[in-house]
Amino acid sequence: MTEAARFAPKVVALSGGVGGAKLARGLAAVLEPDDLLIVANTGDDFEHLGLHISPDIDSLFYALARLNDAERGWGRKDESWNFMAALGALGGPAWFQLGDRDLATHVVRTQRLAAGESLTDVTAALANAFGIRHQIVPMSDQSVRTRVATPEGELDFQRYFVVEQCRPRVIGFRFVGAEGARPSPVFAAGLASPRLEAVVICPSNPFVSIDPILSLPGLRERLATLSAPVIAVTPIIGGAALKGPAAKMLAELGHEVSPVGVARRYVDLLDGFVLDARDAVEAARLRALGLAVVVTSTVMRDAEGQCALARAALELTATLRRRPAPVE
Amino acid sequence: MTEAARFAPKVVALSGGVGGAKLARGLAAVLEPDDLLIVANTGDDFEHLGLHISPDIDSLFYALARLNDAERGWGRKDESWNFMAALGALGGPAWFQLGDRDLATHVVRTQRLAAGESLTDVTAALANAFGIRHQIVPMSDQSVRTRVATPEGELDFQRYFVVEQCRPRVIGFRFVGAEGARPSPVFAAGLASPRLEAVVICPSNPFVSIDPILSLPGLRERLATLSAPVIAVTPIIGGAALKGPAAKMLAELGHEVSPVGVARRYVDLLDGFVLDARDAVEAARLRALGLAVVVTSTVMRDAEGQCALARAALELTATLRRRPAPVE
Repeated sequence: MTEAARFAPKVVALSGGVGGAKLARGLAAVLEPDDLLIVANTGDDFEHLGLHISPDIDSLFYALARLNDAERGWGRKDESWNFMAALGALGGPAWFQLGDRDLATHVVRTQRLAAGESLTDVTAALANAFGIRHQIVPMSDQSVRTRVATPEGELDFQRYFVVEQCRPRVIGFRFVGAEGARPSPVFAAGLASPRLEAVVICPSNPFVSIDPILSLPGLRERLATLSAPVIAVTPIIGGAALKGPAAKMLAELGHEVSPVGVARRYVDLLDGFVLDARDAVEAARLRALGLAVVVTSTVMRDAEGQCALARAALELTATLRRRPAPVE
Repeated sequence: MTEAARFAPKVVALSGGVGGAKLARGLAAVLEPDDLLIVANTGDDFEHLGLHISPDIDSLFYALARLNDAERGWGRKDESWNFMAALGALGGPAWFQLGDRDLATHVVRTQRLAAGESLTDVTAALANAFGIRHQIVPMSDQSVRTRVATPEGELDFQRYFVVEQCRPRVIGFRFVGAEGARPSPVFAAGLASPRLEAVVICPSNPFVSIDPILSLPGLRERLATLSAPVIAVTPIIGGAALKGPAAKMLAELGHEVSPVGVARRYVDLLDGFVLDARDAVEAARLRALGLAVVVTSTVMRDAEGQCALARAALELTATLRRRPAPVE
């Protein structure tokens, strides 16, 4: 707690999994460990085979430790799958792929949680063991579980995402446990940091990566009234998401499948928006929403692309004056 | 329970790990699934990384499913160690080697136990999944944990066996939980089988593989008064154990390091003894203990050796008349 209170970052980044983790790695490349706090969505955490799995935290670990498999797009590189083969032969569940190396992360996490450590502490210990110098924290130490409402009923997120491969039509979301959850101590301290210069919403799915974070009681209002600017980097490029169901969800829920459709989700708390060059034509509409806009390449094909986008995002925040406190 | 009561084997084998599992495989090769019950020591079960590990049950699984690594002498063949490498990089415990494939067994067992299944049921399900047609049961569904007394204090069995590599001098053993444990239902039913023709004590360590089984309340007396004969196969050949600390323990505890030293441990319940040809000279002394003796090769270098020893053991039991009930 003392250490949490002492940590006073300049930038707080809100991130989901793979896409967000790319920008998080870029931010970590251009910011000192003391200056950056990366907050991970834990709405898609789940228990599987008795193991506590935190997919977005792990995506951040593997990206920042440069252990991620860039080709497969998820999990660890140089991975092997002999546990899964043996598990399959025993009739165990095959729907969620657990690599042999990846498994060590889940086993250590599960054991430490069972011993009474908080997810914040376990995450810090694992990040340290991975040699990551920047701080990664879960959005909350309490359980928040994303459930996906479909015409056929509600599904656990991983069932929707992995088993059903996002095929069911989405009609809504529920973040079970959110009403009783609190931002994790370091996250709360980060938002209260006297040095805070910006909050960056990474290019992550607005519904299942960012909304679970925003579902924490009071957090949306806290961000809306923060004196530091809040910006988002578009997860939609040319009407599609690079990865995942963000575009499909926007469409199914009746939103515009565009950066404007995304920006409207956050318009109450947003000051700026990073738009992809392919969507440059949308800049005027975003500005009409009251947002400062920067247009750049947002694809992040490599480490250089990650750094460039991180710099562009930070430059945008630097141009944003601190907002006056809202008139009551 | 109904099924347990219905199972009426002709032969009940008591087994520890690797050495016992070789004979168990031989017995399974010469006996029908309906005729054999294999009872595994669970005194060296332990919790590690949040996983319930049953080393002797697993040795039996891998031997009977022909998945064991004969060269290494333990674990699964075609094993890989990427989980351990990743765990080590995270600072996790390296003292107990868990292969990537082996891990699936522990994860499935742990999950099913956590869901409330008995160790008997989990073991049956796993054996079935491994394609094993013969019945393997734990000695008990209750926890019995072997602790090794040394001049420096008491050690958990796995700490003594793996971390300390059996170096500390042994001054005694304790089987924690034994006083409150019961033989597993199928084990109890096996001993009550109307078809029972023999109990075979496999060539396993008398102190840490067989004694934990015999420590179950009433079991020693039950075996001593059984109408079917009880025989043991020597784990000591030419003054040494093929594997493990049996000879060292016999010596440290002041027993003769010989088949006679082993036989004396069980003399209250034993009718016959299978002696290795190298120790043929001991036959007379064993007979003087009141035991029927067969002398044969007990090394079991391959499947043929396992079958030959199983047949020799069963032939010995066939020569033994059923004992009259003891005079009260």
